[in-house]
Amino acid sequence: MKSLDAIIRSSPEQLTWQPVVENSNLPTAYEFVIAAGMGGSSLGAFLLRAGNVSLPVFLHRDYGLPQFSDSVMQKSIVIASSYSGNTEETIDAFCEAGRRHLPVACVSTGGRLLEMARTQGVPYIQVPDTDIQPRCAVGFMVRALLKLLEKNEELRALENVVQNLSTDVLEEEGRSLAKKLKGFFPLIYASGRNEAIAYNWKIRFNETGKIAAFSNVFPELTHNENMGFEFSGAQRALPQPFAVVILRDASDHPRILLRMKIIAETYQARNIPVILHDLVGATVWERIFRSFSVCDWAAYYTARAYGLDVDGEKTVEEFKDRMAQNGIS
Amino acid sequence: MKSLDAIIRSSPEQLTWQPVVENSNLPTAYEFVIAAGMGGSSLGAFLLRAGNVSLPVFLHRDYGLPQFSDSVMQKSIVIASSYSGNTEETIDAFCEAGRRHLPVACVSTGGRLLEMARTQGVPYIQVPDTDIQPRCAVGFMVRALLKLLEKNEELRALENVVQNLSTDVLEEEGRSLAKKLKGFFPLIYASGRNEAIAYNWKIRFNETGKIAAFSNVFPELTHNENMGFEFSGAQRALPQPFAVVILRDASDHPRILLRMKIIAETYQARNIPVILHDLVGATVWERIFRSFSVCDWAAYYTARAYGLDVDGEKTVEEFKDRMAQNGIS
Repeated sequence: MKSLDAIIRSSPEQLTWQPVVENSNLPTAYEFVIAAGMGGSSLGAFLLRAGNVSLPVFLHRDYGLPQFSDSVMQKSIVIASSYSGNTEETIDAFCEAGRRHLPVACVSTGGRLLEMARTQGVPYIQVPDTDIQPRCAVGFMVRALLKLLEKNEELRALENVVQNLSTDVLEEEGRSLAKKLKGFFPLIYASGRNEAIAYNWKIRFNETGKIAAFSNVFPELTHNENMGFEFSGAQRALPQPFAVVILRDASDHPRILLRMKIIAETYQARNIPVILHDLVGATVWERIFRSFSVCDWAAYYTARAYGLDVDGEKTVEEFKDRMAQNGIS
Repeated sequence: MKSLDAIIRSSPEQLTWQPVVENSNLPTAYEFVIAAGMGGSSLGAFLLRAGNVSLPVFLHRDYGLPQFSDSVMQKSIVIASSYSGNTEETIDAFCEAGRRHLPVACVSTGGRLLEMARTQGVPYIQVPDTDIQPRCAVGFMVRALLKLLEKNEELRALENVVQNLSTDVLEEEGRSLAKKLKGFFPLIYASGRNEAIAYNWKIRFNETGKIAAFSNVFPELTHNENMGFEFSGAQRALPQPFAVVILRDASDHPRILLRMKIIAETYQARNIPVILHDLVGATVWERIFRSFSVCDWAAYYTARAYGLDVDGEKTVEEFKDRMAQNGIS
């Protein structure tokens, strides 16, 4: 496997990959999308709102499928995405779609999922296996999903992003962020529209930075989570281990931008470091993928700052081993 | 306003309240629900999955409405819920539904929302104003939502729960939990199906306990968040301020129960305290509301343990004041 810094450096190239639909009898009459997939593999569907793609999507990050009535399910398309093709939850979702005779399509590099799609004549897109960690394949997974949904305009917009992902600048931004976050657990805040962006930052800090990190969105967090950061009374004796990154998008609702400003000021007044990070770019897709490069580097330099093995996947492998010892459902 | 302990003690009574639909020309032909509301006011809709109500629901915790096409939106019903009736995001959603001529209904104690519903002849349910904090009105808000959706079986199931909510036992469970969690920031984990239960625990710790707390769900968290708790390398010098509560439901998928077991063991091996809390009760609604009583008390005794004013709402009031100084959009 390539080293992580080489993978991050070359990841913008994923955005020019041209996905091909095999068994291309894609259903077209669906009214909504059920996106079955875990972690980074569900990110393509999760990002549709941030990308201004106005499709009703249910993220299904679980075994099986949502328990909607058959008449509702018949109006949907189930898209099962798994980079490895061997994610047990996603395989379970795919099999249930088959049992219930629902329209289904797949995205994967191979594994059991693609094997079943081929055998059953199900439409699928094969993602290139370029010897990278699954979580570094976000560009591929997003493009495959957009292709299945026939979002050609968005696919073209993504291709135009590549020229503006000058990695030296973004690496420096990420390195500088990691420096500011050293010693803290990152909390990533964004607008509700950009929830998937904040979530990708969070899981990237977890997976690459091997550090506890959480995400939340405006305006919801101003109704509850903010009350957890008063640090008054005897709570002053607790450690204050959090630092907040607010992903600010100039096109967010003005009242959300105001909420971001107030939260930044009140948290800082309680000695919680707040970093305002502007999502910049000529298009929404540029804003999304520039920020992903920054968080890739920030998580990378976070791991480095703590002397961790950035190329290891100890916890995930151990967890999978223990699940496997107990058989597959 | 009543004292918080008196409010918690009497809150099961909310589950026998009989909601009445005014302007009862409710739309019935909708295919999915768009639930507009913030924090606890969106909990009724959020809980439908945990309550095994198989309806496609989009939670919209934001200004405006989802940007789906008009043809999709015409097949939905927008339900705007705000305990006070003055939540600016929810009013904004209600107004946009009006502008787009979408089927809409309201749940509130009064405020601008009910005023507009009355003026415009929109179906609504008026929730009793019993002089309690909005976040303590979960029972009312859930019942109102179920009534609007004509879920009579679930309404009856809720009424049967009351006799089993013996508050002394649940108060003791909550007090004991608070004791174990003292000095830590709670992480609340549950199955994806029970996501709304975990989320209510989290916001209850934030709002009543005034403590940082986060929630996440199985199996998703075993793909990323768990990697943030290795505490290896120089991260060993960081504080380890988290304690995990796993809300275990005997009817969860067996592979999810296995994931819970493995996570409990691996976290404990890294000195992260893990409390397994079983969701018990004869029906899903009993499991839900028993656990809500426990978390109400756990959050209450958390605030008490830190010497905090359990009846105060300092942060929320300050935040609202600052938003108001900047006008209403």
